[in-house]
Amino acid sequence: MRQFILYARKAVTSPDFSLDDLPGSGGRMDLVARCICNALWISHDLRRDSCIHVVACGSPNPPVVISLYGDRLRNVSPDERNIAAWIKKALASKRRNPGINIRKLSFQQLVEELVSEGNFFYILHEQGRDIARVKLKDDSVFVLGDHIGLPGEEEKFVARFEHEKISLGTTSYLASQCITVLHYELDKKSSICIAGE
Amino acid sequence: MRQFILYARKAVTSPDFSLDDLPGSGGRMDLVARCICNALWISHDLRRDSCIHVVACGSPNPPVVISLYGDRLRNVSPDERNIAAWIKKALASKRRNPGINIRKLSFQQLVEELVSEGNFFYILHEQGRDIARVKLKDDSVFVLGDHIGLPGEEEKFVARFEHEKISLGTTSYLASQCITVLHYELDKKSSICIAGE
Repeated sequence: MRQFILYARKAVTSPDFSLDDLPGSGGRMDLVARCICNALWISHDLRRDSCIHVVACGSPNPPVVISLYGDRLRNVSPDERNIAAWIKKALASKRRNPGINIRKLSFQQLVEELVSEGNFFYILHEQGRDIARVKLKDDSVFVLGDHIGLPGEEEKFVARFEHEKISLGTTSYLASQCITVLHYELDKKSSICIAGE
Repeated sequence: MRQFILYARKAVTSPDFSLDDLPGSGGRMDLVARCICNALWISHDLRRDSCIHVVACGSPNPPVVISLYGDRLRNVSPDERNIAAWIKKALASKRRNPGINIRKLSFQQLVEELVSEGNFFYILHEQGRDIARVKLKDDSVFVLGDHIGLPGEEEKFVARFEHEKISLGTTSYLASQCITVLHYELDKKSSICIAGE
């Protein structure tokens, strides 16, 4: 499974945000929604081999981990408002979606859980190794920061476990764009494997 | 300049759509906004070397070409709602943004205009040449369809001029994701050129 962790420093942790103001009242919930869209959607389908864990660290009840799974998601559209509406419902413990899971968990607890399942970590980092030179493992966890970046202490924590720091080049992309590029690089790798069989 | 043409078959051509329902009342204006975001934004900046022309072919007054320029755009945020709000204003000929231009123009007229400026075209196509094998020219126009695809007659029209059909691999990405991948491939190429200087 391809897994993504997005550290969302300002993403709110209660359903009391307005769908008409995702950047402000939602604490950049627009950014979160775009990351979810690119992690789980392709044209006319969902990526059933992928999931994304959003570590929401905004007020009033941080941290909360919101996990979305491509193989179980139902009735969600890829637009920002619809994705955010489902997060709002999940935070309110209202209508449940089998593909969305909310837990009171910290970034470090999430990482420990994924370590215990035997995962390898890739940390996106401007000084990381050029992705073109990395033999990406498909069943991995990719760790990304939001527009402010991954806090140093969280980066150090992940770096205690089996990991590699990778870079997507000299351009600083939006977090959501990084996810698209990672999928693209993994897709290329998979299609080469299939063609070589 | 990097230019993108998005053929948006259902995107509405009047300001009478609801910002609360971009997929429905806007004729997939959510998709349009995501394409614009990925064409023009990077982390904490705009791509000043890029523009995107959206050929809106929905009711009630098709076709309309909405062009957005990274070097002139002001006060727009990358979230879908804000981008759509600016398109709504532009369609209503209300508040003008120096980076948004609205014209009563067809897809073919737009292509002819870009041909007369000496541009080369890349058409995204599943049977196209693998992008890894293509030496991308930086100052080019990339032609994309929406979720329904580029109509055959429009594709044939572009193919009368200097062009190449390219493919991003075996996965069918969202149009907005295709734009991210194209920028990524062009960015890699540019950074190799700079490093080689």
